[in-house]
Amino acid sequence: MIYADNAATTRMSEAAMQTMISVMRENYGNPSSLYAFGQRSKEILEEARETVARVLGARSREIIFTGGGSESDNQAIRSAAALGREKGKMHIVSTAFEHHAVLHVLERLKKEGFEVTLVDVHSDGLVRPEEVEAALREDTCLVTVMFANNEIGTVQPIREIGEICRRRGVLFHTDAVQALGHIPVRVDDLPVDFLSASAHKFHGPKGVGFLYARQGVRLLPLIEGGAQERGRRAGTENTAGIAAMAVALQEAAEHLGERAEKTARLRDRLIRGLSEIPHCALNGDPVHRLPGNVSFCFEGIEGESLLLLLDDRGIAASSGSACTSGSLDPSHVLLAIGRVHDVAHGSLRLSIDETLTEEEADEIISSVKEVVAYLRGFSPVWRDLESGKTPHIL
Amino acid sequence: MIYADNAATTRMSEAAMQTMISVMRENYGNPSSLYAFGQRSKEILEEARETVARVLGARSREIIFTGGGSESDNQAIRSAAALGREKGKMHIVSTAFEHHAVLHVLERLKKEGFEVTLVDVHSDGLVRPEEVEAALREDTCLVTVMFANNEIGTVQPIREIGEICRRRGVLFHTDAVQALGHIPVRVDDLPVDFLSASAHKFHGPKGVGFLYARQGVRLLPLIEGGAQERGRRAGTENTAGIAAMAVALQEAAEHLGERAEKTARLRDRLIRGLSEIPHCALNGDPVHRLPGNVSFCFEGIEGESLLLLLDDRGIAASSGSACTSGSLDPSHVLLAIGRVHDVAHGSLRLSIDETLTEEEADEIISSVKEVVAYLRGFSPVWRDLESGKTPHIL
Repeated sequence: MIYADNAATTRMSEAAMQTMISVMRENYGNPSSLYAFGQRSKEILEEARETVARVLGARSREIIFTGGGSESDNQAIRSAAALGREKGKMHIVSTAFEHHAVLHVLERLKKEGFEVTLVDVHSDGLVRPEEVEAALREDTCLVTVMFANNEIGTVQPIREIGEICRRRGVLFHTDAVQALGHIPVRVDDLPVDFLSASAHKFHGPKGVGFLYARQGVRLLPLIEGGAQERGRRAGTENTAGIAAMAVALQEAAEHLGERAEKTARLRDRLIRGLSEIPHCALNGDPVHRLPGNVSFCFEGIEGESLLLLLDDRGIAASSGSACTSGSLDPSHVLLAIGRVHDVAHGSLRLSIDETLTEEEADEIISSVKEVVAYLRGFSPVWRDLESGKTPHIL
Repeated sequence: MIYADNAATTRMSEAAMQTMISVMRENYGNPSSLYAFGQRSKEILEEARETVARVLGARSREIIFTGGGSESDNQAIRSAAALGREKGKMHIVSTAFEHHAVLHVLERLKKEGFEVTLVDVHSDGLVRPEEVEAALREDTCLVTVMFANNEIGTVQPIREIGEICRRRGVLFHTDAVQALGHIPVRVDDLPVDFLSASAHKFHGPKGVGFLYARQGVRLLPLIEGGAQERGRRAGTENTAGIAAMAVALQEAAEHLGERAEKTARLRDRLIRGLSEIPHCALNGDPVHRLPGNVSFCFEGIEGESLLLLLDDRGIAASSGSACTSGSLDPSHVLLAIGRVHDVAHGSLRLSIDETLTEEEADEIISSVKEVVAYLRGFSPVWRDLESGKTPHIL
C-alpha cells in the first residue's frame, strides 16, 4: 500500500509505540495516587508535559492534556466564549474554512446568542490579516484561525493575525492540528493564546492531544470532575498515550527540517506531475502550504470514484477531510476558496510524509492520470465540457 | 507490591494489551476513510461496538465511545439538561455522594439556572428509592445516581430508582464506572436511559470509555465537530483503545461470576481482619457492596500517613477517590454517610481483585493493624480519646 493520507492519521512511530507499551505494562498506576507506584506515573506525566512544552516553547503549566484535537478546539472556544459572555463580549471572528470542530462549536454558540463573523478565504486558500482586523469589534472575545488547513494545506499568516489580536486585546486561538510536527510552531515566537494539537497527526497515538493555554489566560474545563490537569480537564490521565505523544512530538521536532525538506520535494514532484492532467487545478497556494499536502480538483469526475479506483491500485488517498466523508455535500473548504460545486466534487488530497519514495510518487502520478482519464471516459459532465455544451472552468 | 487500588485504576489484561498493540501496529487507518485500509479500521470499531453492546444487553447504535467515564458523565448530564431547558424542565435529582464528574457538572448547571436536589445517603451508604421519588417534581428533567460508589463500594438500588423514573417519565442516568465488569450490569434488564463506563476500571486502557444512550432518547454531543459516532462525539476514533476496551469487557463478563465470588471472599476476609482493630468502622453496607471494596474509618489517625506507611511496606492503597487526592478536605462521600470530619480523615480504601492471595490479604491485615497502632501511638487526638477527654465515636 502507498499510504498518502497522513492528514487523516499517521502510523505511530516505533519509539512512541514502545513508550506506550512500556507505560501500559510497567506503569499503570493512577498519577493521582499517593503511593510510589502512582507517583512514578505522575512523574511520567510531568516529564511528558515538559517535553511537549519544550518543543512548543511553552511552560509546562501551559499544557493541558486532552483526548484529542477536537476536544482541544471545543474547550478553547467554549471557554473563551463563556468568559466573553461574562464581560458582555459576544462576538467571535473566524474563517469559513476552519475544521468542523471549530465551525460546529461556533454554530452552537450562535444559537446561544453569540455573533460570529467568518472572514473570507481567498482563492489562494489564505486568510488576509487585514480582513481579520477589519472584522474585529469592541465586543469581540475571540479570534480563531487554523494554523494550516487540513484539506488544502495552506499555512496561514498566524504571526500577523496574532499580532493584530494582541494589539487589540482579543484572545487568539489556532487549531494547529495539521501543523504541529510538520512545520515550525513555537508559542514563544508567536502571539497565540490557545493552540490545539492532536497526537495521531504526528505519529503519536489516537485518542490523545493537548491544548496550550498561555499563562495568565483563564481556561475553563470542558470536562469537569476530578482535579486533574489543575482542574482544567477531569478524568484519569491517559499516561501511556500522553507519554507516547511526547516521544512522537520530540522525534518530529528533531527531524523537522530534513523531513519537511524531503517531503516538500516529493510534494512538488507530485504537483508537477498531476498538473499535466488537462483541466485540473491545484487547491491552495503552492508556496504557503504544508510540506506534505497535495490537493487538486479535476473537472468532470467524482472524487469518490477516483479514491475507490486508486484504492484498487493500492493507493490510500482522500478527497478532503476524513471527518466529513460519508457526507454528499462538497467540501466547505473548497467552496470557501471559490470552487463551484461540480468542481469541488472532483477533488483529491494526497498527504504524504518523507517515507514516500520517488518511485511511489511517480506511481501515484501515473495512476491518477490513468484513473482520471478512465473516469472522464464515461462521465456525461465531461462529455458536455468537451463538446463545448458547458464551458470549462479549470 | 500488593496492589489494592483497583478502584483507582487496573492493570491492563494481557489480551487487551495485545489487541491494542496489534491495532496500533497493523490497523492505524482512519475509520472514516473510504479506502479498504480505513474501512478495516471501521470494521474493528464496529466489532468493538457490537461486543460492548452484547455484554451490556444493548444495541450497537446505543453505544457512544468517549474518552472516559468523566466525559461520559459530563455528556449525559449536559445533554439531558440542555434538552430539559428546551421544555422548561430545569430540575435535576442526584445524591450527595456522586463522583465529582457528576457533582461538579451539577454545580455548574446550578449557576446556569438549574435547581438540583441531592437526596440523602443513609449511614449504610445506600440511597432510598422512595426518597428519590419524593424529590421528583413536574419540572425534573433528569435523575442521576451512581451504580456503585467509588469510595465505599455500596451498590445502589438502580432497578427500583429506574422504575420510578420510568413511571414518572424522567430520564435516568447512572455512572456505572465502578460497577461494570465487576457486578452484573445489563440495560436490557434495568430501566436506565444513560450509563457511563470507563475502560481502565475493568483492565482496559486509560483514556477510553463509553456512554450508553437508550434508543429513542436524544443525546447531544459534548465534543462537536466531525460526524463520528453518528454525530454524537466528534474526533478521530481511538480504534486501538476502543478495541482493547471491548476485549477487556468481554473478558470481565466471561469471568464475572467466579471472579466476583473469589474477590468477595477475600474482601470479607479483609473486613473480618480489620474489624478487630479497636475503634474502627466499616464504611457502607457489608452486603450491598462491590466484591472488591473494603473501606474503613479509624479513629485518631490521618489517612494520608496510613497510606504512606503502607506504601513503605509495599501495599498500594487509597484513602478514597484518587481523583480528589491532594485535597485537604475530607471525602464528601464519607461526610455524606454521616462521618464527622475527624473520623472521615482516618479512612482507608482497599480495592482488590481476584488475583490477590489469601497470604497477601493477611499481610494487608497485619500491616494495617501495626501501622494504625503505631500512628495512634503519637496521635494527640488518640490520646484525648483514650484519656476520655473526648468521647469515642466509633
